[in-house]
Amino acid sequence: MLPSHVTLDLSGVRFSVDYRIVGDASDARAKAEGICVEQTIEFPPELVPAGDIADQIIGQIANFVENGDGSCTATISYAIETSGLELTQLLNVIFGNTSIQPGIRVQKLNLPDELLQNFNGPRFGCDGLRAYLDVPTRPLLCGAIKPMGLPLTDLAQCVYEFARGGIDIIKDDHGLADQKYANFEERVQRCSEAVAKANAETGQKAIYMPNVAAPADQVLEKAIWAKSVGAGGLLIAPGLTGFDTMRMLADDDRLNIPVMMHPAFIGGWVTGRDNGISHAALFGQITRLAGADASIFPNFGGRFSFSKEECISIAKASAAPMGALKSIFPTPGGGMSVERAPELLDVYGREVILLIGGGLFRNSPDLAQNCREFRELAEQF
Amino acid sequence: MLPSHVTLDLSGVRFSVDYRIVGDASDARAKAEGICVEQTIEFPPELVPAGDIADQIIGQIANFVENGDGSCTATISYAIETSGLELTQLLNVIFGNTSIQPGIRVQKLNLPDELLQNFNGPRFGCDGLRAYLDVPTRPLLCGAIKPMGLPLTDLAQCVYEFARGGIDIIKDDHGLADQKYANFEERVQRCSEAVAKANAETGQKAIYMPNVAAPADQVLEKAIWAKSVGAGGLLIAPGLTGFDTMRMLADDDRLNIPVMMHPAFIGGWVTGRDNGISHAALFGQITRLAGADASIFPNFGGRFSFSKEECISIAKASAAPMGALKSIFPTPGGGMSVERAPELLDVYGREVILLIGGGLFRNSPDLAQNCREFRELAEQF
Repeated sequence: MLPSHVTLDLSGVRFSVDYRIVGDASDARAKAEGICVEQTIEFPPELVPAGDIADQIIGQIANFVENGDGSCTATISYAIETSGLELTQLLNVIFGNTSIQPGIRVQKLNLPDELLQNFNGPRFGCDGLRAYLDVPTRPLLCGAIKPMGLPLTDLAQCVYEFARGGIDIIKDDHGLADQKYANFEERVQRCSEAVAKANAETGQKAIYMPNVAAPADQVLEKAIWAKSVGAGGLLIAPGLTGFDTMRMLADDDRLNIPVMMHPAFIGGWVTGRDNGISHAALFGQITRLAGADASIFPNFGGRFSFSKEECISIAKASAAPMGALKSIFPTPGGGMSVERAPELLDVYGREVILLIGGGLFRNSPDLAQNCREFRELAEQF
Repeated sequence: MLPSHVTLDLSGVRFSVDYRIVGDASDARAKAEGICVEQTIEFPPELVPAGDIADQIIGQIANFVENGDGSCTATISYAIETSGLELTQLLNVIFGNTSIQPGIRVQKLNLPDELLQNFNGPRFGCDGLRAYLDVPTRPLLCGAIKPMGLPLTDLAQCVYEFARGGIDIIKDDHGLADQKYANFEERVQRCSEAVAKANAETGQKAIYMPNVAAPADQVLEKAIWAKSVGAGGLLIAPGLTGFDTMRMLADDDRLNIPVMMHPAFIGGWVTGRDNGISHAALFGQITRLAGADASIFPNFGGRFSFSKEECISIAKASAAPMGALKSIFPTPGGGMSVERAPELLDVYGREVILLIGGGLFRNSPDLAQNCREFRELAEQF
């Protein structure tokens, strides 16, 4: 027997989510009403006790518009307390079960300061990362060491040449984990030494950023260890680790190094246009909430499918006001070449990290020289 | 300057993935060749040193068939060493970057014993869970306590009545995290006491299974604490926490309690038919590899979109041979009612957990009596 009335001590403050719902106004409104229940009480509404569960816990349709393209946008609000003021449960309220219903896509999060103040977000952000790397204004440059299977001495040599050639952030390819041919400890040690040696020679502040793809119970200790031997940042793929693992690493004061988000295994969320989460919400808002200082995404015109508009929406969400959370670097990559850099800088402006992977190896066998050409292009901006 | 030849000490054993690729044979084959590179070296193939990187690390098309529906299925094999013999990196090789390319879906994993032997998989599995609950043959029953916002005394009372009524597994609604109105510690303590009290009265072995949605750095300790006060299992949503967090909890000997997978925030992977991961691979193979003893998925004919065939494919993958890994319980839920139980048992057979959430509250205000009706139906099988 349930109580007939429940009073909760809630703040009355609500956050909201814009959902794009496929269907005409009548269908979409019914689905929106379903979301209000599904994402909160998941319980027959007619059995809910009177009082604050009915009045405040169940989601509320705050706005509803027809988009004129066979879809509607419903803005649904939730009491901030439903999130437990924690990232994992916040994501659960935003899209937990509803993620399984086709034809519903998270377009945008509208998060009030009362909720945002519970999240540190990016530790460095754009300004902090620029200070850390001592690069005040030009676009930042990122390269990835690869291919997997290369002896560690050669991978470390890549790091050295990248740093000598003026690359700011030298990251592991995201496929370098802890394989027998790419032992995590030895790799991090050698690559950290290589970047330190190059920095001593150039006077610059390039960093090596290992991919920490360790088992869940080892991620934090491995990251702390990596920093202790000279890693200058961390590459994390939240599609694989969960977003809160990235948040944990960004928040840990023992680390205090930048975090870059890699999109491996995240594609399920964005590839279907009528489902999942919008590019801006996933690569911008959620990535920022989860503490990344830079968000890697596949650039338009490469071998992936993001449109120019979708990429620009990520860049906008990376910088849009979001409480006290710092803005972060959009980091377009994926089939990039040195030649495309000017086009990208036209689109993204200077507040960007240009990520080139295999392309940096292409122009000549002299890696450092290939990097210098890339750097020279960036310095014109 | 890269080395001209690389020799690696690889076993020669390969695992493979069946990818469904939208397109005619020529398009799909080109995409398949792209996957071979994308999922491994992500590097210009023409620059790869001769030897084992070229010969073994790059993915290989082991089979290719036209499906006759505008798609093809490519079976691509990878050296088991690329996975680092760890779950996170294995998932990364299976679908990391390729997840972002539209029109490619993971259909099936083909994992040899040499790879599988590195994973414990489910600790209990079907037989172990039956022994743990002392239910040798009939279908198992699961109920969820809700709605969120209910005072903890009432939630604990639900647990008590569910257990009195013969429900085997009484789980938190997945929306119960650590909210101010649903404090994790107090909830777990009260609900564990409630199930123990009911068991003492009935002589049965019902369990209470809390939802452990804690921050990444607290999940393990909170789970261990929950067990210490009487939690009989753990509910985990790997879409939110990452699959390896579930694996960690299943593997930890200090826990040694069953784990149930909840599909919250996992929908991005299955809602688009041409993208993501098949129902069988995600809710069956990967969930099993990640240590769940039971896999919750939205049943056909409810408010979600899974077809009967897709649900059956999950049940099959839950029991199909997979090295030494135990078989697990398909756990259909989502809009279930007592009345539908016979239909579901016809489809799934006895080796199933029937999950009813809000529906258990519907038939009368006497919760225990509603549960008894559900139990009586199950006992006929």
